[in-house]
Amino acid sequence: MAGNTKDRLQALKEILAEVTDLSRAAALLEWDQETYMPPGGVQSRAEQMATLSRLAHVRFTSDEVRRLLDQLEDEVAKLPFDSDEASLVRVTRRDFDEATKLPPQLISEIAHAGSMAQPVWQKARREDDFSLFAPYLEKNVELNRRIADAIGYDERPYDALINRSEPGMTTAELEAIFAELKRAIVPLAADIARHADAVDDRVLYRGFDPDLQLAYALELVKRLGYDLERGRQDISTHPFSTAFGPGDVRITTRVSRDFFNECLFGSIHESGHAMYNQGMGQNIDRTPLWGGASPGVHESQSRFWENLVGRSLPFWRHFYPSLVAMFPEPLREVDEEAFYRAVNRSYPSLIRVEADEVTYNMHVLLRFELENEMLEGTLKVKDLPEAWNSRFKSYLGLKVPNDREGALQDIHWSYVSFGIFPGYTLGNLISAQLMEKIRTEIPDLEAQIEKGQFATLLGWLRKNVHRHGRKFTPNELLERATGRPLTAAPWIGYVQRKFGALYGLETARR
Amino acid sequence: MAGNTKDRLQALKEILAEVTDLSRAAALLEWDQETYMPPGGVQSRAEQMATLSRLAHVRFTSDEVRRLLDQLEDEVAKLPFDSDEASLVRVTRRDFDEATKLPPQLISEIAHAGSMAQPVWQKARREDDFSLFAPYLEKNVELNRRIADAIGYDERPYDALINRSEPGMTTAELEAIFAELKRAIVPLAADIARHADAVDDRVLYRGFDPDLQLAYALELVKRLGYDLERGRQDISTHPFSTAFGPGDVRITTRVSRDFFNECLFGSIHESGHAMYNQGMGQNIDRTPLWGGASPGVHESQSRFWENLVGRSLPFWRHFYPSLVAMFPEPLREVDEEAFYRAVNRSYPSLIRVEADEVTYNMHVLLRFELENEMLEGTLKVKDLPEAWNSRFKSYLGLKVPNDREGALQDIHWSYVSFGIFPGYTLGNLISAQLMEKIRTEIPDLEAQIEKGQFATLLGWLRKNVHRHGRKFTPNELLERATGRPLTAAPWIGYVQRKFGALYGLETARR
Repeated sequence: MAGNTKDRLQALKEILAEVTDLSRAAALLEWDQETYMPPGGVQSRAEQMATLSRLAHVRFTSDEVRRLLDQLEDEVAKLPFDSDEASLVRVTRRDFDEATKLPPQLISEIAHAGSMAQPVWQKARREDDFSLFAPYLEKNVELNRRIADAIGYDERPYDALINRSEPGMTTAELEAIFAELKRAIVPLAADIARHADAVDDRVLYRGFDPDLQLAYALELVKRLGYDLERGRQDISTHPFSTAFGPGDVRITTRVSRDFFNECLFGSIHESGHAMYNQGMGQNIDRTPLWGGASPGVHESQSRFWENLVGRSLPFWRHFYPSLVAMFPEPLREVDEEAFYRAVNRSYPSLIRVEADEVTYNMHVLLRFELENEMLEGTLKVKDLPEAWNSRFKSYLGLKVPNDREGALQDIHWSYVSFGIFPGYTLGNLISAQLMEKIRTEIPDLEAQIEKGQFATLLGWLRKNVHRHGRKFTPNELLERATGRPLTAAPWIGYVQRKFGALYGLETARR
Repeated sequence: MAGNTKDRLQALKEILAEVTDLSRAAALLEWDQETYMPPGGVQSRAEQMATLSRLAHVRFTSDEVRRLLDQLEDEVAKLPFDSDEASLVRVTRRDFDEATKLPPQLISEIAHAGSMAQPVWQKARREDDFSLFAPYLEKNVELNRRIADAIGYDERPYDALINRSEPGMTTAELEAIFAELKRAIVPLAADIARHADAVDDRVLYRGFDPDLQLAYALELVKRLGYDLERGRQDISTHPFSTAFGPGDVRITTRVSRDFFNECLFGSIHESGHAMYNQGMGQNIDRTPLWGGASPGVHESQSRFWENLVGRSLPFWRHFYPSLVAMFPEPLREVDEEAFYRAVNRSYPSLIRVEADEVTYNMHVLLRFELENEMLEGTLKVKDLPEAWNSRFKSYLGLKVPNDREGALQDIHWSYVSFGIFPGYTLGNLISAQLMEKIRTEIPDLEAQIEKGQFATLLGWLRKNVHRHGRKFTPNELLERATGRPLTAAPWIGYVQRKFGALYGLETARR
């Protein structure tokens, strides 16, 4: 690189480091708000968050950044695609365009609409009255159309929205994937429903001491590879993972005496997110490259540990004895295989966030379809509840008794942004696609897991996923790691095998 | 006010609000670092703190602020001295001058010298070798002289330094006050030492369950008036109080099974600081007026509750029964008066932070004298340990066995700043001067305290001290609240009466 290029890269990095510091400070403010902040802190905290966000935005969207990017794009063109320098310029440009494409007037309308819609959504859900929320959702649909127009798209308006969260993904690609999922899951879920008695999960509700649950969960995620010298666990109403730098990546959890899964699987899930951040390279710290490749890829890491590892039989062969030692009373006369079956019980349910591995993606599919149709005008907002309920019946066989447990259940549509939901399903699919590849590269993986050895597995994820941060788009990352772009087949095969066996289905025996 | 003036005030306030938000976010980062941050977080946290401080400094010292202040100073000249507007301009100007008077070169030398000196001080203290630290202290003395020169002063270089922390105070005023203290305390402490057997504090070391201590302390400070809807208590190695806004003022504490005073009196002390911040007016929020009038005035509030209230007999008449109910075993056969005597035991000791009410100010006096003499060149750094030891002997009658417990004990001299120590004594004196006035305005104060009623007392402090924030200098505040500037007489009278009675001294009977 020429000396001038180095100087410009350095100048850009200094600005990006400042923006990163502001964002990380804001993330700590959010973490504190969810964990320890006293009720009286709300107003000052909102002021502080607004100031930090505004300063970060102003600094990032400055003419100086634009000028540096314009110059650097030519200068790094000959460097390897995956070099730190070329990647930095490429990803910063993508973020810069996203941050600058929306006119300020639209940004402030979005903020305003969101803050107006949220309390109304809460009231509408509380009172089970969709008509209260409908005008606000109509406004949000309109704003999403304007966002799509401002960003621009070739084929479908949803392309512009999905691209913001899952770079490189298209609506057509998602539709093909969801169609494939639908063909496989609808019959599988129906099959499972016919064999519902095959799995009994009552042991999970026998009452588990909350403090012991927390202690056990923390010890377990440490054994998986979550580094507590660079992390910690606290309690919050809604579990999350957050990062303030490579050396400080935290998780939160919640715990219920009456339902075992919440604390343990929640902790494994969040530590999956956290291990992703703990594995990002120091070489990309304090730049836009440091972070998850997309929400979908981030979710793939949490789902990987939660489901593909944490809900597997070898996993419980290793951990179950220590679990029994911690909870002898509720686990009396339950063996590891029965426990494994219990934590994998599948059944159609109304609420997405409570859904099991098999049915979860159908909840996402439903929302993806409805968002897309509202955006393209083929579904009117007033007809949303009816569309929701009829499709829910056809996909999962359940009658939706009210809108509170139907079209009003998620907070997402009270924010303006569409295009968030698909990431949840992408996470599931990516995790299975990675696992398929891993099994070929670590042939004794199951034996390792059964011995409680996770270092080789984590090392593979670090090398192929974590260390790259945001250098690659989800499909670029998958091609490099598995040799092909996103495909639903590994996940479909995985659930068919696993749940076929669990429920004694024909599918499994084919 | 003219419309233009209003616009300019508004413009100034917007900048100051942004600076406040940045400082408060930085304060949360610090709080987290002392309470919950994992070890790995150190580097990123330092980067974040540096960025927030730098942005706040750049914004505050901008030409825009200078221009607004220049214009506004004339425009608010006719407004009342204590109006929000006149006070805002006056105090912001003082802060602005302080922030801009030091040349950037000196600021960076100070930062560098501090970061070099601190590890050496730690090593020197660990190895009890003053000679290691001496060259760094010499550098710090030189830098303090240059700070004084840059700020400017009429009479004595220490004037410039003390003015930075205690606005309006002069070296001469401090010298007169310390001389008066010395005349009173040296004989009182000697008299107490001769009657040392009169007070027995062994009950405090009988072992108190740490969790119960924390619970009791938190309940107690709540009863004093520390609002937990706008605050919380956590554990840290060094207790402190910090504020992120009027609705979020926190305290930290530490707890020792083997020594009762640490947790309870530490919690009362910190809640005294916190109640000060909780009492500041909403009208001055997000401006430089929101904060303590000075470290000395802040310390007056912590000392007020810790000593004048918390170490009084009426206080224990109220709380002792509940304390016995919480700790029946260690408090067996100890009555409230014996407990009151125990927590007030006075004895000369080597370490400032462990000193009792009577001897504490002598520790401060010693440091004030030595700082001043080093600054004026009448004491060479190499002669510091000898000067320390001989004066310690003459003031408190103790032989200092080594420099670790002598001239190397405080971290303060490893930072560059001199002029911090006097604030601790000012806090003690101000608390007694306020209390003298309060007793004339709330004649039944002792009866109220004995009934556990603190609302009238806290209300007085809110009205006369807390709500003003930084509007007034310490002496302005004292004149408004008590009718006269700072005087040592109330505090001297208080300790002579209290400890005369406790130890059965002649002083008390005079």
